[in-house]
Amino acid sequence: MYHTHSTRKENHLKASEIAALLGLPFEGPDREIGAAAPLDSAGPGEISFASGRHALDAAASRAGCLILPPGAPAPSAAIRAADPRAAFARAVAVLHPRPIAPPGVHPTAWVAPGAVLGEASSVGPHCSIAAGVRIGRGCVLHSNVTLYDGVTLGDRVVLHAGCVLGADGFGYAFSGGRYEKFPQIGGVEIGDDVEIGANSCVDRAALGLTSIGEGTKIDNLVHIGHNCSIGRHVVIAAQTGLSGGVVIGDHAIVGGQVGIGDKARIESGVVLGSRSGVLTSKIVRKGDQPLWGVPAQPLSRHLAQLAALARLPRLIEEFAALKRRVEELSS
Amino acid sequence: MYHTHSTRKENHLKASEIAALLGLPFEGPDREIGAAAPLDSAGPGEISFASGRHALDAAASRAGCLILPPGAPAPSAAIRAADPRAAFARAVAVLHPRPIAPPGVHPTAWVAPGAVLGEASSVGPHCSIAAGVRIGRGCVLHSNVTLYDGVTLGDRVVLHAGCVLGADGFGYAFSGGRYEKFPQIGGVEIGDDVEIGANSCVDRAALGLTSIGEGTKIDNLVHIGHNCSIGRHVVIAAQTGLSGGVVIGDHAIVGGQVGIGDKARIESGVVLGSRSGVLTSKIVRKGDQPLWGVPAQPLSRHLAQLAALARLPRLIEEFAALKRRVEELSS
Amino acid sequence: MYHTHSTRKENHLKASEIAALLGLPFEGPDREIGAAAPLDSAGPGEISFASGRHALDAAASRAGCLILPPGAPAPSAAIRAADPRAAFARAVAVLHPRPIAPPGVHPTAWVAPGAVLGEASSVGPHCSIAAGVRIGRGCVLHSNVTLYDGVTLGDRVVLHAGCVLGADGFGYAFSGGRYEKFPQIGGVEIGDDVEIGANSCVDRAALGLTSIGEGTKIDNLVHIGHNCSIGRHVVIAAQTGLSGGVVIGDHAIVGGQVGIGDKARIESGVVLGSRSGVLTSKIVRKGDQPLWGVPAQPLSRHLAQLAALARLPRLIEEFAALKRRVEELSS
Repeated sequence: MYHTHSTRKENHLKASEIAALLGLPFEGPDREIGAAAPLDSAGPGEISFASGRHALDAAASRAGCLILPPGAPAPSAAIRAADPRAAFARAVAVLHPRPIAPPGVHPTAWVAPGAVLGEASSVGPHCSIAAGVRIGRGCVLHSNVTLYDGVTLGDRVVLHAGCVLGADGFGYAFSGGRYEKFPQIGGVEIGDDVEIGANSCVDRAALGLTSIGEGTKIDNLVHIGHNCSIGRHVVIAAQTGLSGGVVIGDHAIVGGQVGIGDKARIESGVVLGSRSGVLTSKIVRKGDQPLWGVPAQPLSRHLAQLAALARLPRLIEEFAALKRRVEELSS
Repeated sequence: MYHTHSTRKENHLKASEIAALLGLPFEGPDREIGAAAPLDSAGPGEISFASGRHALDAAASRAGCLILPPGAPAPSAAIRAADPRAAFARAVAVLHPRPIAPPGVHPTAWVAPGAVLGEASSVGPHCSIAAGVRIGRGCVLHSNVTLYDGVTLGDRVVLHAGCVLGADGFGYAFSGGRYEKFPQIGGVEIGDDVEIGANSCVDRAALGLTSIGEGTKIDNLVHIGHNCSIGRHVVIAAQTGLSGGVVIGDHAIVGGQVGIGDKARIESGVVLGSRSGVLTSKIVRKGDQPLWGVPAQPLSRHLAQLAALARLPRLIEEFAALKRRVEELSS
Repeated sequence: MYHTHSTRKENHLKASEIAALLGLPFEGPDREIGAAAPLDSAGPGEISFASGRHALDAAASRAGCLILPPGAPAPSAAIRAADPRAAFARAVAVLHPRPIAPPGVHPTAWVAPGAVLGEASSVGPHCSIAAGVRIGRGCVLHSNVTLYDGVTLGDRVVLHAGCVLGADGFGYAFSGGRYEKFPQIGGVEIGDDVEIGANSCVDRAALGLTSIGEGTKIDNLVHIGHNCSIGRHVVIAAQTGLSGGVVIGDHAIVGGQVGIGDKARIESGVVLGSRSGVLTSKIVRKGDQPLWGVPAQPLSRHLAQLAALARLPRLIEEFAALKRRVEELSS
């Protein structure tokens, strides 16, 4: 029986119990905690956290319990953690268990004979899974996900609603005044622990594979063209688009609304700022700065250009004045 | 019984009857009108309108009836209106009633037990409505809409096909060489009379709510990140993306393909031109001009920079010449 | 009975048989070929191709058979073709027949009474086809496609998963502090042999038609606004957006992430580079160069501006120095 629980389910625990569950030191007074909340709105029955420059703001918080770095002043109960945000994430998971995607295939989904579904994986309402698809263990496919034939998912892959994996790459040959489709016969391979956002698209390869490495996280409305090869633990924010054959190395970070041209190569660890652009076949190497702008360049150079551009209209006037001055001097 | 009517249904009325229905003055000769059409293609059996600088073009129209501002010359029958476009919109609604979305749940939709559906609301084919969702009265959900748990819709909300509301926000903590999901346990709250375009995505909040205020209109393929707070009567055009925690005030107008960084604040009444960009945490105040460009700035300044940039290659040449001239003068 | 075959089906043929099927000259030695592969990875049982500047690389290939232009050195068996890529495309189709979309309506799809479906057309899982829709012959609608009422498809149209055709255009009148919908009563007309990518959206016209001409190919996540008129054999890459009333002439090529403003007119044969932008009502004429940038301009001018901009910070310093020099000369 397919069933999801309400998101509003909350567990109530003592602050000291939460500390114990996290394996972290607790400083009283103890309180009953029913929810997690942001620092500025958390009330007496709620837990929050503060770190870095926000740790000082914590003194004004009304939260019943705060997760704080050692030494930060605590207005009330405190749990001490070296990484308060990570500890808070675990506390949230304890207090607010999310609906569990039920294993198995939702009765409204369509799974073709010949598709293989791993243990404890969940295929949500109105998903369409073609023949030849292989889904690993513990995967979650939310509603309306489409997997064309030749798509393989690793274990614990999460695909949000409306994702399309394996649609034909955009390849045509122009011949006789019209476009003929270049056959798109490759597949798509998604590594373990990948998460892909709502309505994102990953096209199949023309030949070979479009691949996304283990642990990579992709946001909503992203386009991954045919034959792209994305490394492990990469992050790609919303509405970014990769043309065909783009290679992205491990641990790269790609902002939102970025555009990357055909066969460009983004090396491991590169950080591409939001809306930056990379031209076809360009190789982007990791430097000591993130890259911004179109074409993408080191942040300091990008900022220098923006500043210079803002000064340019005035420079043109000053230049005209200087030219007149030089003419006066000449005569 | 779920059923839609053809879009081509047309009512036939006399021009004078249309005027009477609109409560507006009519000038003959009277005619039978069967359809609404654009000014340049409308024929004798059709009604159109003209306003502003187009009012003079109306003299050449073959339309059987025109809605015109007082005083504009009429080639044939005329209905007089202070706002001809608004009057025309009402005439169109009379002549071309659109298919009514039938109240209730389409037999192919999936609505989880525990979801609440208001009176006279329509859930279209292949929609997926999770437990914990609350839908107000008179809402229309077109096909393939997904509402995750914890989404609340006001009254008369229209969601076009493929919309996804409530998918997880894009939040991770990097730890031990890999990304761990930061729990996304908040909800989504959509105000009355909101309309959201096809395949747009509104993510749930990490904590708290992602909210869209009453009367706001959002186009296709828009991304609204987690914890955004969008005011009332805001317009957002297609393919625009808002990162996490963006705040937009009432009556703001955001063009297409705009990008807004994390926690930026767009104040009430601001107009952001298409493709403009706003950096993380930036506050954009309402001025006397719309804002354009990346980063967004007042239109006149943006245009001055574009003009200066177009002149720049020539300026560089002229600068080199002036430098040589100064060197000659020095020697 | 609805059924798809695995993508991995392969036919085995002799290289000489492939040449014969393509009607092209063959040079031995003959071999059994089981698959097509890219030039750099093809092995002894595989066929590949090389053309243009890559023809010389072919000498190092391990492929069992290569399709090559006349005269290019062949390391092993060769098929000679004037256009090796086009010949390879046909060889791929022979070796790797793709799953055939089965004619008829998938049992999970919803087709309203009154929709008309042409011979040999295939409506995939979870599609939603409204009343008043007309689908030509030999069309393929992949999963989760939505066609609103008033959409007409020609013959052999391919719509990838999640496409939405006929949603309301984004038209409102601001009146009394709120937006009133401007009626969207027009339709959508798609010509023969059009292909539209996953999760793309084509809005209905307010009045009249949004139209896409014969043979046009559109990539994923593209937005086509209301009343656009797109010519024949046009190519539009991923994530591009067209506002309302845009006109694009035949054989134009539009890159990815391009934005085109309301009522702009792109004439036949124009090439708009990726991420370029065209302002509202602008007319873009075909020149001897592709157009790039925002606003779009001939490539050479765009590159000159980029180069000048990169030099600008240094120019500002040099200008200050020259100004000091002139002041010294003056005194």
